[in-house]
Amino acid sequence: MGSGTTEPLFHRLAVIGTGLIGGSLALACREGIAGRVIGLDVDQTHLQRALNLGLVDQAGALPTGVEGADLVILAVPVGAMTGLVRDIAPYLARGCIVTDVGSVKGDLVTQVEHEIPAGRMYVGGHPIAGTERSGPEAAKAGLFRNSLCVLTPTSRTPKEALEPVTRLWEMVGSRVVLMDPFRHDRIFALVSHLPHVVAYALMRALPDLTEEGEELLRFSAGGLRDFTRIAASDPVMWRDILLWNRKEVLEAIAGFQKMLHRFEEMISTQDEARLTEELQRVKQMRGQLQ
Amino acid sequence: MGSGTTEPLFHRLAVIGTGLIGGSLALACREGIAGRVIGLDVDQTHLQRALNLGLVDQAGALPTGVEGADLVILAVPVGAMTGLVRDIAPYLARGCIVTDVGSVKGDLVTQVEHEIPAGRMYVGGHPIAGTERSGPEAAKAGLFRNSLCVLTPTSRTPKEALEPVTRLWEMVGSRVVLMDPFRHDRIFALVSHLPHVVAYALMRALPDLTEEGEELLRFSAGGLRDFTRIAASDPVMWRDILLWNRKEVLEAIAGFQKMLHRFEEMISTQDEARLTEELQRVKQMRGQLQ
Repeated sequence: MGSGTTEPLFHRLAVIGTGLIGGSLALACREGIAGRVIGLDVDQTHLQRALNLGLVDQAGALPTGVEGADLVILAVPVGAMTGLVRDIAPYLARGCIVTDVGSVKGDLVTQVEHEIPAGRMYVGGHPIAGTERSGPEAAKAGLFRNSLCVLTPTSRTPKEALEPVTRLWEMVGSRVVLMDPFRHDRIFALVSHLPHVVAYALMRALPDLTEEGEELLRFSAGGLRDFTRIAASDPVMWRDILLWNRKEVLEAIAGFQKMLHRFEEMISTQDEARLTEELQRVKQMRGQLQ
Repeated sequence: MGSGTTEPLFHRLAVIGTGLIGGSLALACREGIAGRVIGLDVDQTHLQRALNLGLVDQAGALPTGVEGADLVILAVPVGAMTGLVRDIAPYLARGCIVTDVGSVKGDLVTQVEHEIPAGRMYVGGHPIAGTERSGPEAAKAGLFRNSLCVLTPTSRTPKEALEPVTRLWEMVGSRVVLMDPFRHDRIFALVSHLPHVVAYALMRALPDLTEEGEELLRFSAGGLRDFTRIAASDPVMWRDILLWNRKEVLEAIAGFQKMLHRFEEMISTQDEARLTEELQRVKQMRGQLQ
């Protein structure tokens, strides 16, 4: 790697899961990062569409299709990750690097490390990119431009895996942040998983849209729409995230409930002074998020 | 009204409160809707800035500055509304129409109607427009273009008030929807007030930003940022909205808490099937909000 300027970073890249993230990464890697991009997917319709859309150079079959790859990217729901690694393990070439794009790390990283055979390497990853859309049609090469990507090396991660995976993310436009896998899960429970649960609960707390529907739809610009964009995210992906990170997610929900209860109290006791103070404080905090 | 094409809809418009909504409406009305636009504000700094920005033709003093106006627009926080109407009542010209832009209607409409002297008219209003910014600097003439405006006439609202106020909103680009004031408050508790409370609680549930700060700020694109834009809304305005609509808001919070608790249960019992089903249902609902 790196001796010739026209030499791709990887010779043969296998991307498993050809949805929004996997498909976008495959497409971005076709532009000089990987010599050849093989798409694999348990969903044959997805795979065929990814091939037709030109996201991958060729379609392969699971689990043997990873043979000969020097990089394998796992872009499947978090719940399918460990089983998938177990299935492909016998076919991974010596020196092959495996990485993933799952939104949960922690225990998942430990489990995947356990399944990786000797002489093969793994580094956990989580690109902070995506939209509420999903599937191959939503994929685009520029998805990761100006985004962050968290990589979660552990004491078991060789430099020979971390360096080229870091380079890959930088080449598709991400800034790479290294983080402990369990710290990753604590932080993302707060900044991502809790907000998703809250959005889901908010949507489900609305009266049946077929009854009160018209007005609710009409007036969602009053605030609701902002909150519910992410409620349209892929259900299976998010089910897995919430279940795999449940310890941290449940703790985040509990903290949120406590705070919501405080607001409820301020409103019911009409505590004008405290409510003003709280809202001012939130406005200041929000300013820091810009 | 309406006989001559160059005749403005109102001769003398007094706008009380020259922040985002009042200032934008004043500016939009200067473009042929009102002959002369007088700005009034308890905050003299706001008023001077509105004058300097050209949002109003001239500045007036409260409460006498409404004298001679054929339309008075109340664009102050909901909690200040009734007292303000009481103060200006002696100076309202016979035939004058009073309207407001408050985000709560219900009891407020009843109270304002009670304060309006004989021979003067009132119609409640709530434009669904605005950003998280506030103050005269945020005002713009096009703020209401392609927005909705709810007007809440009651049995006490004369057609002579409803018609020109409807026309005004249409001329600034709004589509007018008529609604019972109490029904308005039930609907907006769900589509706007509850989402705001949830955003506030979500922000306050985060660890101290000065400690865990950097990572939380960095990764807010993971979902948090979408949810917290409206947390930056004007604190006094929102304190008033939550307190004035507290019955409906508390009911909406209770419904939301119940739903959040259901999600908490599904996660803690790892009820994969039910969680998938719920998330699929939310995705479908969200599709209807597009």
